[in-house]
Amino acid sequence: MKILALDTSSIVATVAVMDDDRLIGEYIINHKRTHSQKLMPMIKALLESCEVTMKDIDIVAVAKGPGSFTGLRIGVATAKGLAHAQNIPVVGISTLDALAFNMPFSEGIICPILDARRNQVYTAVYKWENKDLYSIEKPAAMSIKELVEKLIERPEKVTFLGDGIEANREYLIERLGERAVFSPNSVKMQRASSVAELAMEKAKNGEIQNYFELVPTYLRKSEAERQYEEKMKRCGNGES
Amino acid sequence: MKILALDTSSIVATVAVMDDDRLIGEYIINHKRTHSQKLMPMIKALLESCEVTMKDIDIVAVAKGPGSFTGLRIGVATAKGLAHAQNIPVVGISTLDALAFNMPFSEGIICPILDARRNQVYTAVYKWENKDLYSIEKPAAMSIKELVEKLIERPEKVTFLGDGIEANREYLIERLGERAVFSPNSVKMQRASSVAELAMEKAKNGEIQNYFELVPTYLRKSEAERQYEEKMKRCGNGES
Repeated sequence: MKILALDTSSIVATVAVMDDDRLIGEYIINHKRTHSQKLMPMIKALLESCEVTMKDIDIVAVAKGPGSFTGLRIGVATAKGLAHAQNIPVVGISTLDALAFNMPFSEGIICPILDARRNQVYTAVYKWENKDLYSIEKPAAMSIKELVEKLIERPEKVTFLGDGIEANREYLIERLGERAVFSPNSVKMQRASSVAELAMEKAKNGEIQNYFELVPTYLRKSEAERQYEEKMKRCGNGES
Repeated sequence: MKILALDTSSIVATVAVMDDDRLIGEYIINHKRTHSQKLMPMIKALLESCEVTMKDIDIVAVAKGPGSFTGLRIGVATAKGLAHAQNIPVVGISTLDALAFNMPFSEGIICPILDARRNQVYTAVYKWENKDLYSIEKPAAMSIKELVEKLIERPEKVTFLGDGIEANREYLIERLGERAVFSPNSVKMQRASSVAELAMEKAKNGEIQNYFELVPTYLRKSEAERQYEEKMKRCGNGES
């Protein structure tokens, strides 16, 4: 079973092709947020290098969020378009699950943090038990302070990764001391190979979707929706 | 500091560009052993995607072995050629160190095994202590049986990765039972990002080389050398 996987949830654009237990290829570009220009040429280049065509692909997998709203829309729309053209199913993978999967069998707990702006991060907490990755805190948008309150009570070492590290590194060290550990830079950001492998597991368990059903997991309202609602509220107040 | 890293030590051809703590891009192709055709176009495509030119590169890093003799020659020769053209230093990274680095902060011990043919594997054993990866068995070519004898006395879970897994999976499970664990497929094979990050650490410690000094670490004599020596021995015996 061949899976084409995409992740454009952050500044990184990344695509991978996996065939059952073999990663056939992966392309990662962490340079300028121009996914709408880069993504299709990256897919084309990768497929050509691997001598795979879209006709060979059985499933399109995509990091469905949380993450950059525009990034998620590009990724999910591309996945839907490709799946529609080939009439094949899709698998949506949590961006946070995929990031945690960058640290296989890591000791302690793993905490991906993504910059969610407005002084929040998208985050979740994971732990490896034998060969399985378990979520021990569900994905949510919260302040870094709220996250630390959840982590400070646990005994384990916490490995942080994701694009929310840089802005919060000092605070995390200040509050968690030696328990705060940061992933190597080589695995800090999104990798489509992690999306592909998690999607392969899901697909083999029959957890596939029709491309019509796939929707991004934003976790929070977009800035436009938030402003619109605030404006409506103000107008409502004005009229009353 | 910008590093261009290459690994052609196995069937996988992989290149990466890292700028200090940022992985700018990575390209992995695990499809046919045609590195002499693929490697330079992959480097060109990756650099162009990242808007980096060879003039921006400060150091060329390469997986120097052990691994496929032809693969290592292609990787090392390419690294030397690129470094010579720009007059920049090189850093050679052990293929086994780089593979172990694919499993950051992994619990237990890590054991990369590469198919060395002639019923042997190239292998070494590693352990993470806090944020550092330590080698606890030096790289060597040995039979899988010899390797198991070394591992069987230790108490830890052993995570295997590399292209030597498939031929030996059943034997490892039979001998080590539940202590034998296999890496996820997404990190099983070589990744130039691991080479890049290990090279970045070395370069920052001043451990760089002139490209004239860089040589592959074969760990064993090539088939041609072995046959030549045997022939010479036979001739010698014949004459005596």
